[in-house]
Amino acid sequence: MFEARFQTFEDQDDRAAVAGRVAALRGELKKRGLDGFIVPRADRQQNEYVPPGEERLAWLTGFSGSAGAAIVLAGRATLFVDGRYTVQVQAQTDTAVFEIAHLVDNPPSQWLRANLSAGQTIGYDPWLHTAEGAERLAKACEAVGATLVPVADNPIDALWADRPAAPAGAVALHDQRYAGETTASKLTRIAAELTKDRVDALVMSDPHAVAWTFNIRGADVAHTPLPLAFAIVPREGRPTIYVESAKLSNAVRSALEETATVREPAALETDLAALAGKAARLDRATAADALTRIVREAGAKLSPGDDPVAAMKAIKNHAEIDGSRAAHRRDGAAMARFLAWFDAEAPKGRLTEIDTVAALETFRRDTGKLKDVSFPTISGSGPNGAIVHYRVTRATNRTIGSGELFLIDSGAQYEDGTTDITRTLAVGTPTDEMRDRFTRVLKGHIAIATAVFPENTTGAQLDPFARAALWRAGLDYDHGTGHGVGSYLSVHEGPARISKLGAAALRRGMILSNEPGYYKTARYGIRIENLVLVIAKPTPALAEKPLNAFETLTLAPIDRRLIDSAQLDTHEKHWLDSYHARVAATLTPLLDNATARWLDAATRPLEAH
Amino acid sequence: MFEARFQTFEDQDDRAAVAGRVAALRGELKKRGLDGFIVPRADRQQNEYVPPGEERLAWLTGFSGSAGAAIVLAGRATLFVDGRYTVQVQAQTDTAVFEIAHLVDNPPSQWLRANLSAGQTIGYDPWLHTAEGAERLAKACEAVGATLVPVADNPIDALWADRPAAPAGAVALHDQRYAGETTASKLTRIAAELTKDRVDALVMSDPHAVAWTFNIRGADVAHTPLPLAFAIVPREGRPTIYVESAKLSNAVRSALEETATVREPAALETDLAALAGKAARLDRATAADALTRIVREAGAKLSPGDDPVAAMKAIKNHAEIDGSRAAHRRDGAAMARFLAWFDAEAPKGRLTEIDTVAALETFRRDTGKLKDVSFPTISGSGPNGAIVHYRVTRATNRTIGSGELFLIDSGAQYEDGTTDITRTLAVGTPTDEMRDRFTRVLKGHIAIATAVFPENTTGAQLDPFARAALWRAGLDYDHGTGHGVGSYLSVHEGPARISKLGAAALRRGMILSNEPGYYKTARYGIRIENLVLVIAKPTPALAEKPLNAFETLTLAPIDRRLIDSAQLDTHEKHWLDSYHARVAATLTPLLDNATARWLDAATRPLEAH
Repeated sequence: MFEARFQTFEDQDDRAAVAGRVAALRGELKKRGLDGFIVPRADRQQNEYVPPGEERLAWLTGFSGSAGAAIVLAGRATLFVDGRYTVQVQAQTDTAVFEIAHLVDNPPSQWLRANLSAGQTIGYDPWLHTAEGAERLAKACEAVGATLVPVADNPIDALWADRPAAPAGAVALHDQRYAGETTASKLTRIAAELTKDRVDALVMSDPHAVAWTFNIRGADVAHTPLPLAFAIVPREGRPTIYVESAKLSNAVRSALEETATVREPAALETDLAALAGKAARLDRATAADALTRIVREAGAKLSPGDDPVAAMKAIKNHAEIDGSRAAHRRDGAAMARFLAWFDAEAPKGRLTEIDTVAALETFRRDTGKLKDVSFPTISGSGPNGAIVHYRVTRATNRTIGSGELFLIDSGAQYEDGTTDITRTLAVGTPTDEMRDRFTRVLKGHIAIATAVFPENTTGAQLDPFARAALWRAGLDYDHGTGHGVGSYLSVHEGPARISKLGAAALRRGMILSNEPGYYKTARYGIRIENLVLVIAKPTPALAEKPLNAFETLTLAPIDRRLIDSAQLDTHEKHWLDSYHARVAATLTPLLDNATARWLDAATRPLEAH
Repeated sequence: MFEARFQTFEDQDDRAAVAGRVAALRGELKKRGLDGFIVPRADRQQNEYVPPGEERLAWLTGFSGSAGAAIVLAGRATLFVDGRYTVQVQAQTDTAVFEIAHLVDNPPSQWLRANLSAGQTIGYDPWLHTAEGAERLAKACEAVGATLVPVADNPIDALWADRPAAPAGAVALHDQRYAGETTASKLTRIAAELTKDRVDALVMSDPHAVAWTFNIRGADVAHTPLPLAFAIVPREGRPTIYVESAKLSNAVRSALEETATVREPAALETDLAALAGKAARLDRATAADALTRIVREAGAKLSPGDDPVAAMKAIKNHAEIDGSRAAHRRDGAAMARFLAWFDAEAPKGRLTEIDTVAALETFRRDTGKLKDVSFPTISGSGPNGAIVHYRVTRATNRTIGSGELFLIDSGAQYEDGTTDITRTLAVGTPTDEMRDRFTRVLKGHIAIATAVFPENTTGAQLDPFARAALWRAGLDYDHGTGHGVGSYLSVHEGPARISKLGAAALRRGMILSNEPGYYKTARYGIRIENLVLVIAKPTPALAEKPLNAFETLTLAPIDRRLIDSAQLDTHEKHWLDSYHARVAATLTPLLDNATARWLDAATRPLEAH
């Protein structure tokens, strides 16, 4: 009955092949006169989800996490993973072949400095590292008298017999009704930014920027409707998009050609050479070291600064905001069906984590509008809930038991908007400790939802408000409070975020997540996540600064069985009751009778106060 | 009757001399083949208060502010000041000679890039700029084809006929009873840090670090008991202090020689040459570009990183903490006398801002322990209170009127501790708006005073709590919430601060100010400042992180006439009443009967709640 089509639960198990592949790589390196090679988990555009043919790290090491790197020397091999993956990596790689190192505490550059000898030559694929990343590695090698050398053909590709072909997802036009601004208008604004910064041409390496600018979407990677495309946008004159012809229908090509020249990706290098003498701007976050080298060798001047599109794209226009509101109503109705179903089924004691993923995706698919999930659903019961980036597989799948907490973090891609929501649900009777912790997380969530802050306030300045109630109990959570969200694009979008590192100002029209949590290792996890939109707050009399606030976009009940209302102050209770009233009023017309009855009960006010 | 001995109220007026001095400088530059020269407000050790003979910027421009710079070209001269000084600079310099630029928005490096031509040669005195500062200027010159050149003899010194001699303040030993740790012990800890970082020698350019390490104090600059001294501390072996013999009594010299070699400052250069081949650590914040050049030319390797003493010095030991508590009791008693006197005198309508400075200093001097004020008292009535860094002069001095707010920010240097306190006082009946604003500032002050936060929390993470109540009204203040405070040393001490830029973790034993404010331009200023000590907070059951909190050290009533208690929640009222009860209980035994009666009235609880 329920089926997950956008997510699999298989455990990758390439462990047995690891030793052979590493040996083959060592043979290949020897042939090329290299003492070692660095394999990052990355594609040519630094995508979050990479095409299968770019999963070189997984092929070599067996490790399938979303971040990591390996360094293979003749006598030694090290696999770097971060704190999220320390358990998973043990199960996936061959630890007789790979030592495990911490990607953050002991990153590859530091490791190289400590472990290389003078005279050694280490190869890297310059298409898979940013210029800054490659420079860091090169400096580390230099410091010990070793040399980092770019390698033209990735040696893994020479060994990987059944390497999947590059994706050829069809490019679609992103309808004006959802995009809200024509490409011509966006190009005018980009040109103005380039003029301001005295930049002759913007080299777009970020496929999100290409998709946004040219109002197109693609199907090349999982969960994000991206076309793997590049573009060059000159300050004056016609831009060029570099995308495989095979991805373009005649209609799409014609539409693109109204504002741009369309060329094959292979033409990029030639066209970059034409920038000789010009000031070119590259996006430091996504531009490959190879791209930077090509531009520099072409004799162009690299203009410092960021891709201006990142900041423009983050601020949603009216159509995108209206689209997001519509997407959230639709998604909220699917969530209500899911939550009602869960409340009926979970107490029977037979539901598994995978069942809930399939059910939720099915309810979303029933809307008729679901394009994809916006990331693999995190469905964690009991101890699995405490693993912040848990992804359920057949091996880890648990039956959801009574007295447990169940955490489900999921999202959808609709043409009118991208969603991301986390709910934590009680099955049976929660303990007082669980309710205490849930209530502290809720207080943090409400502190963000009701925050009032002047223009130019950064995400770093709001982040502490989400933590104060946990801090008082000596607790905290080891992740940011919120990330930016794209408009039928990536569910993780810069430059703004609500976190200690959130240096970007929160501007009206930005959409961010509000997701404080608490994780008790090996016991349970709690997270309450809604998406919020930065809006203008009417300024009080005598105000000296324009004020902003958040509008909560996500619509779904928060489990009142987990709230200790004695811990909430009047203002917090008022927020929760108002939010629930809005959820009920908005969603009820969209629901079947049974779900509507469930929602009515789930959104009643907390006890009179 | 009342007298200020540590602060003057004279207006510097060198305006008439500016044109002549700039012309003379241009002549001198021409002789030396320079197209321009940069004059920062700085001495050789980047001190906050500089000796009179180092006030080259004031001599040249007439501008006497605590930060700024000038660039003199043949046909153009620009004076850079920050937002604090935009009014003052107009009164002090000759604006027919100097254009005024914004030190922060359009700093000298940016100005050079925009205004120099290729081939020009600009001089600077490498002793008055840090290496980073000089590099920024050099890069700006390079970018337009100009050259920045270090100049051995400062051309201003050649012109400044009556330039004051270098100070020769006597060096005193800082008693073990106040210092709490022997020099030998401090040197052992420094050596351990150097070993950890593989540094062979620490070159101490920060006189605060020298004073702390060798348990000495000096009398070379105003308001901070610093000896202008350098030191070289090797990882192994005997350190050397570079200080003029004339500043040392035999007893002090003998005491210093127990752990160190004492040499004349002129010997520093020779001794640095002996570091050839060694890894030397310089303090980026205070080491002059000249010092960095000498070390580099000597063939030493510059070890990246900060002076480890800054972090050690910031964490006060038991003796320093007990000393600070004693200093604050003494200072609180003087403040109580002052506040009682003010309440009696101000309503008569004859008090001036200068009168209050003299009275407060006299009450502090009456303790018999006052060594200096820790900075020039800010005494601002009505509109002057809105000038954040106001310093009263005979020209600006106002009579304090009825219906006004009066802001007084002051501090003392006692051998056992440094204090810094701001109170805002009502004269006559305050308006509802004043009470609303004061109460919002108080809510921010209480939010910091009662904050509970895990180890490793930074000042940046606490800063927003101080602002939230103001933000809700569309208000804010344009300065940090708190700075570190030294122990009978600088009242502004790094590395920790409570501000958007406060990246350092708040560690137990640190002393910081808690001073939110609100400033209504041309009307009134509000600031409530206490010093706070970071202490361990007993951790609740099941806490997962060690917790910290603040102990408020400053003891003086907060003006209840300015509080709208309807705006305070129960917990805030409780804090204020408890604080006032502690102030009364601690200070009453130290006061005369009349002041004790006043204090009893001033510290009564807010209305029953």
